[in-house]
Amino acid sequence: MKKSVNERVKEAMKEQGVDLLLITPSSDMVYLLGKCMMSDERLNVYVVPAEGRDFLFVNDVYGQEVAGWGIPETEVVTWKDGENAVSLLLEQLEKKRLPYGKIGIGASMPAGFLVPLQEAFARTRFVLHREILGRMRRYKNEQEQSLMEEACSRCTEALKAVMKAGSGWIGKTEGAFADALCREMEQRGISEAGALVCAGAHAAVPHYTGKDGIISADACLLVDFGGKYRGYCSDMSRTFYFCGENDKRREFEAVYGIVLAALEAGQGAAVLGGRMEDVDNAARRVIAEAGYGKYFTHRTGHGIGIDTHEEPCAASGDKSVIEPGLAFSVEPGIYLPGKFGIRIEDQIFMTADGAKVLHDYPRNEWLVCW
Amino acid sequence: MKKSVNERVKEAMKEQGVDLLLITPSSDMVYLLGKCMMSDERLNVYVVPAEGRDFLFVNDVYGQEVAGWGIPETEVVTWKDGENAVSLLLEQLEKKRLPYGKIGIGASMPAGFLVPLQEAFARTRFVLHREILGRMRRYKNEQEQSLMEEACSRCTEALKAVMKAGSGWIGKTEGAFADALCREMEQRGISEAGALVCAGAHAAVPHYTGKDGIISADACLLVDFGGKYRGYCSDMSRTFYFCGENDKRREFEAVYGIVLAALEAGQGAAVLGGRMEDVDNAARRVIAEAGYGKYFTHRTGHGIGIDTHEEPCAASGDKSVIEPGLAFSVEPGIYLPGKFGIRIEDQIFMTADGAKVLHDYPRNEWLVCW
Repeated sequence: MKKSVNERVKEAMKEQGVDLLLITPSSDMVYLLGKCMMSDERLNVYVVPAEGRDFLFVNDVYGQEVAGWGIPETEVVTWKDGENAVSLLLEQLEKKRLPYGKIGIGASMPAGFLVPLQEAFARTRFVLHREILGRMRRYKNEQEQSLMEEACSRCTEALKAVMKAGSGWIGKTEGAFADALCREMEQRGISEAGALVCAGAHAAVPHYTGKDGIISADACLLVDFGGKYRGYCSDMSRTFYFCGENDKRREFEAVYGIVLAALEAGQGAAVLGGRMEDVDNAARRVIAEAGYGKYFTHRTGHGIGIDTHEEPCAASGDKSVIEPGLAFSVEPGIYLPGKFGIRIEDQIFMTADGAKVLHDYPRNEWLVCW
Repeated sequence: MKKSVNERVKEAMKEQGVDLLLITPSSDMVYLLGKCMMSDERLNVYVVPAEGRDFLFVNDVYGQEVAGWGIPETEVVTWKDGENAVSLLLEQLEKKRLPYGKIGIGASMPAGFLVPLQEAFARTRFVLHREILGRMRRYKNEQEQSLMEEACSRCTEALKAVMKAGSGWIGKTEGAFADALCREMEQRGISEAGALVCAGAHAAVPHYTGKDGIISADACLLVDFGGKYRGYCSDMSRTFYFCGENDKRREFEAVYGIVLAALEAGQGAAVLGGRMEDVDNAARRVIAEAGYGKYFTHRTGHGIGIDTHEEPCAASGDKSVIEPGLAFSVEPGIYLPGKFGIRIEDQIFMTADGAKVLHDYPRNEWLVCW
């Protein structure tokens, strides 16, 4: 019989000598419980001891909600506004005789919780649980794979729908394009839909977030977008070039070819038994050899799952071995300040047969002249 | 001449013996720089030494954006994906001969940054900067006051617009109401608009976030909503009761009266020279004396400004003295599981003349029969 996620977590904790996990509202809580409360400045934690019964320690405001989750064999302990949550948590651990010499926490736990915990738990060592939950979350099972495939396919369809308007987008704002794309995603059941839409020179700023730029003829449009389908992410980018009367597109076309070759090289390096940094090296080499090395300012890709950015990364120094179950983006880019930027991004999933591309959107249909 | 925010921060740091502040993307960065980059897993920090020049230490992906901010006398130091940002930051401090024995950080800094910083800065003591930036942010200046007044007034108008439909909302979903309210806020220049809309028994769950409940006759509708106007928040709640043929509203009416009296008592206790916990005590006493004490499960209010929740709190144990410049919510509630919930919330601002209510929406127009 397959071990449950909870059993596997506890095994990994014992291997790592971690006594307890304290999981604040985050994708880790979603991963473990399938549920999560809103995140605010009140200490709400799911307490997972390596040995013994899990419990939820939550502010009274969330007590009813959490009791309604019906998590089996998980006690709900509440505290009230005005009480010292950290001291009360410590009391609970003492009362339940749970050891807490080494506590694992998630990367998203805010310092507003961690610092008081460190002060009150004076002899405890707090470590990130990367080698426990982080490790487990890297390897997606079949259900997670199929949810991600569905997310990617629905988001791809949304972009196709928006791009039907073709040159009709000329003269419209980045914000109008982003809104239309988000609406198309939402109509296809995608939640938390979002889009970075960068027109012309704005595309040279990798995380540009403005809305008011105008989509123009003889200029590019970079679109980086996605959302979640039943909790799992799609993340994809395409860069288009809109035709105009006075065609300046030769430089764009040349650079596009380099980015596309880099994407293909990176993806080609995504082979079972290889290492994540090989994907980065392969993509980066293509861009460097074409003379644009200094304009490729970020890593080649990132793991993806419940969070848009997870481990492992396709980055220099990430020596993680590529194995079945890993999901990550490959997204090289070249950013020429004041001119244009190009990024092409697809999400891939590693199966026992090798890499599978989850976004089925043509990579070379960048010229918009219809 | 008035001291600048930066000068006042450095003075407070010296008083507290804090050598450096490390400000990650957050409302603190907005407060200090008027700008902020997206928050991701890359270490981006605004470094503020008690003595010496500030600098921005950011990933290359954000380099162009940050350089474009044009923050005077602030150097931008960049690092690249794949490099060890924490070691590079430590090198920078050494190179610039900046002491780092005690470092102040914000409550929102993620553990994914803090734990590696604590490991690399082995002799440094990391403390929350509550007594430095937290303290300063409590006291709003005239400009901040007027932005908050504008936020509150625009959000109030949005609710009035939505409520014009009156009983027309019966049969519609919570989500439809929330969408309409957010649209009305956005049309009035409010950004980050959001609304918790809870129909019937859902209102008994203080932070209910569903969308599918149906607004019904002879049942309540709790609406907690707001957004930002030029960076400053409005946060307001009203609870309505929709008329129907078979009127069950007597119990609702009685409880509404208690919550309203608690709101008025809390607000009455918001006097210059009083303490924040007095506001909580005053509101709580009214509800306890009416026999509903155990159904008022949260504090009476919270500070508000750039963040929806800031210090100080109208909560038991918060002994902050009430002074001009403080802004906070007063929002008592009674939640009867399985039946209904009532919360009435207005934002108040303390002036030299005392408390000023920023939301001008009638508190006793809860009956919707038009």
